[in-house]
Amino acid sequence: MIKVAIVGGTGYTGVELLRLLALHPHAQVEVITSRSEEGVRVADMYPNLRESYPELVFSVPQVDKLTACDVVFFATPHGVAHGLADEILQAGTRVIDLSADFRLEDAEEWSQWYGQPHGAPHLLADAVYGLPEVNREAIKTARLIAVPGCYPTAVQLALLPLVEAGLAETQQIIASCASGVSGAGRGAKIGSLFCEAAENMVAYGVSGHRHLPEIKQGLRRAAGQSVGLTFVPHLVPMIRGIHATLYATVLDRSLDLQSVYEQRYQNEPFVDVLPAGVCPQTRSVKGANMCRIAVQRPQDGDVVVVMAVIDNLVKGASGQAVQNMNIMFGLDESSGLNSAALIP
Amino acid sequence: MIKVAIVGGTGYTGVELLRLLALHPHAQVEVITSRSEEGVRVADMYPNLRESYPELVFSVPQVDKLTACDVVFFATPHGVAHGLADEILQAGTRVIDLSADFRLEDAEEWSQWYGQPHGAPHLLADAVYGLPEVNREAIKTARLIAVPGCYPTAVQLALLPLVEAGLAETQQIIASCASGVSGAGRGAKIGSLFCEAAENMVAYGVSGHRHLPEIKQGLRRAAGQSVGLTFVPHLVPMIRGIHATLYATVLDRSLDLQSVYEQRYQNEPFVDVLPAGVCPQTRSVKGANMCRIAVQRPQDGDVVVVMAVIDNLVKGASGQAVQNMNIMFGLDESSGLNSAALIP
Amino acid sequence: MIKVAIVGGTGYTGVELLRLLALHPHAQVEVITSRSEEGVRVADMYPNLRESYPELVFSVPQVDKLTACDVVFFATPHGVAHGLADEILQAGTRVIDLSADFRLEDAEEWSQWYGQPHGAPHLLADAVYGLPEVNREAIKTARLIAVPGCYPTAVQLALLPLVEAGLAETQQIIASCASGVSGAGRGAKIGSLFCEAAENMVAYGVSGHRHLPEIKQGLRRAAGQSVGLTFVPHLVPMIRGIHATLYATVLDRSLDLQSVYEQRYQNEPFVDVLPAGVCPQTRSVKGANMCRIAVQRPQDGDVVVVMAVIDNLVKGASGQAVQNMNIMFGLDESSGLNSAALIP
Amino acid sequence: MIKVAIVGGTGYTGVELLRLLALHPHAQVEVITSRSEEGVRVADMYPNLRESYPELVFSVPQVDKLTACDVVFFATPHGVAHGLADEILQAGTRVIDLSADFRLEDAEEWSQWYGQPHGAPHLLADAVYGLPEVNREAIKTARLIAVPGCYPTAVQLALLPLVEAGLAETQQIIASCASGVSGAGRGAKIGSLFCEAAENMVAYGVSGHRHLPEIKQGLRRAAGQSVGLTFVPHLVPMIRGIHATLYATVLDRSLDLQSVYEQRYQNEPFVDVLPAGVCPQTRSVKGANMCRIAVQRPQDGDVVVVMAVIDNLVKGASGQAVQNMNIMFGLDESSGLNSAALIP
Repeated sequence: MIKVAIVGGTGYTGVELLRLLALHPHAQVEVITSRSEEGVRVADMYPNLRESYPELVFSVPQVDKLTACDVVFFATPHGVAHGLADEILQAGTRVIDLSADFRLEDAEEWSQWYGQPHGAPHLLADAVYGLPEVNREAIKTARLIAVPGCYPTAVQLALLPLVEAGLAETQQIIASCASGVSGAGRGAKIGSLFCEAAENMVAYGVSGHRHLPEIKQGLRRAAGQSVGLTFVPHLVPMIRGIHATLYATVLDRSLDLQSVYEQRYQNEPFVDVLPAGVCPQTRSVKGANMCRIAVQRPQDGDVVVVMAVIDNLVKGASGQAVQNMNIMFGLDESSGLNSAALIP
Repeated sequence: MIKVAIVGGTGYTGVELLRLLALHPHAQVEVITSRSEEGVRVADMYPNLRESYPELVFSVPQVDKLTACDVVFFATPHGVAHGLADEILQAGTRVIDLSADFRLEDAEEWSQWYGQPHGAPHLLADAVYGLPEVNREAIKTARLIAVPGCYPTAVQLALLPLVEAGLAETQQIIASCASGVSGAGRGAKIGSLFCEAAENMVAYGVSGHRHLPEIKQGLRRAAGQSVGLTFVPHLVPMIRGIHATLYATVLDRSLDLQSVYEQRYQNEPFVDVLPAGVCPQTRSVKGANMCRIAVQRPQDGDVVVVMAVIDNLVKGASGQAVQNMNIMFGLDESSGLNSAALIP
Repeated sequence: MIKVAIVGGTGYTGVELLRLLALHPHAQVEVITSRSEEGVRVADMYPNLRESYPELVFSVPQVDKLTACDVVFFATPHGVAHGLADEILQAGTRVIDLSADFRLEDAEEWSQWYGQPHGAPHLLADAVYGLPEVNREAIKTARLIAVPGCYPTAVQLALLPLVEAGLAETQQIIASCASGVSGAGRGAKIGSLFCEAAENMVAYGVSGHRHLPEIKQGLRRAAGQSVGLTFVPHLVPMIRGIHATLYATVLDRSLDLQSVYEQRYQNEPFVDVLPAGVCPQTRSVKGANMCRIAVQRPQDGDVVVVMAVIDNLVKGASGQAVQNMNIMFGLDESSGLNSAALIP
Repeated sequence: MIKVAIVGGTGYTGVELLRLLALHPHAQVEVITSRSEEGVRVADMYPNLRESYPELVFSVPQVDKLTACDVVFFATPHGVAHGLADEILQAGTRVIDLSADFRLEDAEEWSQWYGQPHGAPHLLADAVYGLPEVNREAIKTARLIAVPGCYPTAVQLALLPLVEAGLAETQQIIASCASGVSGAGRGAKIGSLFCEAAENMVAYGVSGHRHLPEIKQGLRRAAGQSVGLTFVPHLVPMIRGIHATLYATVLDRSLDLQSVYEQRYQNEPFVDVLPAGVCPQTRSVKGANMCRIAVQRPQDGDVVVVMAVIDNLVKGASGQAVQNMNIMFGLDESSGLNSAALIP
């Protein structure tokens, strides 16, 4: 049994980690921390977990308790993992960070987008960007994983087959994306209220969203050159789900893009290329660690439209984190991640 | 491996059975039938099941294929199981019927409420009402299970501790209940449209709902006498969930009802009595085979308020059906039913 | 033109007052106050009001500016009107208080339920409970109106025909009610988040809700005696709407309750008794100052079921406040209140 | 009083016309037709209209009754207005068609997209495309109005300032749009069910949507040349609302696009250019005849992002139809259209 600690377990990625790990045959949550909820039972805060964790209690983070585990997940706001990761890693415990702390390779760029100094630039060389469809080999031996963001996961998986193979013009890609409200976290913000978010759709972060540099970094690595991207996220009235619609110009109209996508992902357990003509629905991945993708070229023109859906809390966060853990510890990559999405 | 057939697999209880059985360690779906979708792949109709059932195809029901299985689930409108059950049972295959066909012991009463003659009154003596919390022993040896309706499951579990022990006045019980829209099934009805059901709440069936005689039959058996019940169901804008609020008059104010409930259900794996003062949320059982119950006596008065929540498609239908199967086949009652509810 | 001031205009009842008054032919909003949003344009906070109030700006409350108006609406948390009403009234400006400050005639009872001393008990004698269907004459000459709460409006209108005429047993009435999330206000509370309230239903305040004494006071006045009431409110995932389902025992089964209700409300512009057999939908009053009511006696038994729906922000708050203003100032009671509800 | 007839009044655009016209000071609905609901009272089908239309009854369409009115609105599926318009027009009654029948100037193109022959090509020369922001003068004298589609209204209003003035590259415009479910009408379709559409987002019509040729026709007229457009509509879980996000390449980075948009629409009563940096919310137009627009150039790059929101049933259908009527009959263009949107 892999002993697991979760730092910052009161948010939506924390509770989702607990839900997924409760079904995991080879992992067990030993420690869960929260400064604000110290002493509270997980079962009292999250009534869906009453049977799964009848005794688990939130505790204040203590390094010795964390390092007594095999792996520590950070489900925290940015900045927290910066402060704790080094000590944990030095004790030989692995770290899987769901926050943005180690996603950007350039500490200065991180600092610009997150508005504070990077707290652990010396660890960046060890951090592996945890997108298994790109970095599986590196993840196997990694000590520190930066779990990709939700939008970056969907957008990169949607575009990789095109940009890796140089099949599309890369200077003017459009990423028109939408997220359910859980992407904003469990914070008590006016904009996340039911009465503000229901029966409403609105764009946000148009001038620049923190996931933009992360996406561009991933695409740059895949393309071998800098990429031009316009990224517009929108908020839509659903709890879970990311829908990404990508627009790019193909360089060769004669290509069979359906085959390109199917071949790229044929061995990937958590990427599903839909049959030609079928559009992905976000609910088809609700609660599941899966990315479904469709590719079309409307009216046989130059513009390729790629659509990708994930559950932002699963393949976009906690499920992908568990997938990384499975790879790191030599388990079946699908362990604990086989549940089908909830329809209806 | 238990070989499973599902008759009528295109509705919401059918797809939910498929979702639950995909995770079941000791059962495998061999046959799924649908006259309207013959030849269609399950994966094409339900994209959430693409990984779980890549090859399964809807077929026209054929008795020999059904009887080649160990158990046949009926996820059909009422009347269908009447016609097919006998032949299947005679072949030694067990039947678990999610429809209303065998829920009422009185064929004439059934006929009145369902507006057609009862198609198999000779099987009624063999039918076991599949509420494990009441009938576990009978289920173990049953050949034919009538899976309780969604409202009846919630209302009976909420009231059993009171009526079994004669703790409340039974001639004027109020059951004010609400259901998510999936309770109306996957039929293309105006009233089930998003634009009709969203941002709306409405009562229905006030003059008499088909679940009324089923609930009264269950309570009568528990009380040992006829019970007076007013049952008003409401439609609320959510996909899944039943919320039942029961009002009854207690006979003795000095009783510790919290203890009564906790003791009644202390060994039940799928009934959870919440701590005193906590109200159950329907989302705490979304996707899970669980009934959560709370009991309060406001202002220490005579009126006891019991609240119970279930997922109408799980503990209110397909999950309870699997629970029955587990009991019938001597498996761990929780096999395949351990997933936690999806929050958020 | 009636000059209107609104104290505390940033909440949902405040913005609803602004929306309704924008269409009012005889009233004009001159002043709107908010301490937290001083200097902010209404149009910048509420984009739906950009055309209606291009110049109106939130200001800190100043008594001389308030008393320069003909009427001051309080759309504030409880306790605020206590502090300001006296000075405004003494200047001859009328007060319509949407908060709970003057709803209970007994200052001590108020103090118990609201957890603080009553701040203006000397004004209670002048306060008129602003339910026009009961108090129209008193409202005409009132200086200070206590606008009823949302649940109390729905429950009283549903029960008045029975209790005024002594047609039902009054010692054990059940009020099983539900509210949309806007009833919780615009505060940034976890429980009001989209991801907490969507796809969920839950009871709250079972042991005692602040609207309970208000309802009991109203029913006691109507019945001429004390009334026994069990009141259980529930939260349902919609923005607007109250659905009240009332259960009582009739004293005489031969009564034609449909006629009783139709006659009681035949001259009421904002109470609509639905045809026999039709259940009221909350969306049928969304955005409209209307209460729709239906009455049934299931299976011709002793229990009468009354269903009533209102929009909690309109007939349950701001619309009823405007209705009171119309009556106080001798206007057509329907002025500015004729818009039909929004379906779909 | 303008006498109004509505053909096909049972759908969502029909009931919305009724709602809007109920508040119109200079128009009155005399006739409403429906073959399927003949004899049914409007008040019985749409409970929100019980006070507004207590007596109005659906009747089978009869030409003499229609031509006794001043104007006939068609709120019908495509093809119906083709058959009836000529006779009505010849009688001197004006026609405002909310369907697609007269939107495309090329009958053959219409036939290709709608899969049937054009039923009234001889009327096309008389049909005026009813987008007042472009065609106000022609509308004043028109006899036959083709009310624009919902997506075309939003997309054209968003792009007109750019394409009219030749400020953007016009061969590769991206229109990534989303609609609430009411855009699919009141038909009992599986895809429009609450349980299919809630908690879900999905693209549709990617290979070619019927609004594509209409948008391209409008932009071609504005640009004076053919336009290249990729149009991807999405379904999002809300009742009302269109959100259009447009992406184009500007030809001159030094332009102040905010000013361009503000000047283009400075005299338009129903187009609102938001302050720089503010994104439009669909709920800010819920129930209102308004289009709100924002324009941004992220990171000061070449790509301009324009966002536009409308209520698909108001500015995208019935409200715009009334706006056209007002212009045709020389009324204040805003008559009956001044209600603010419903927030929350």
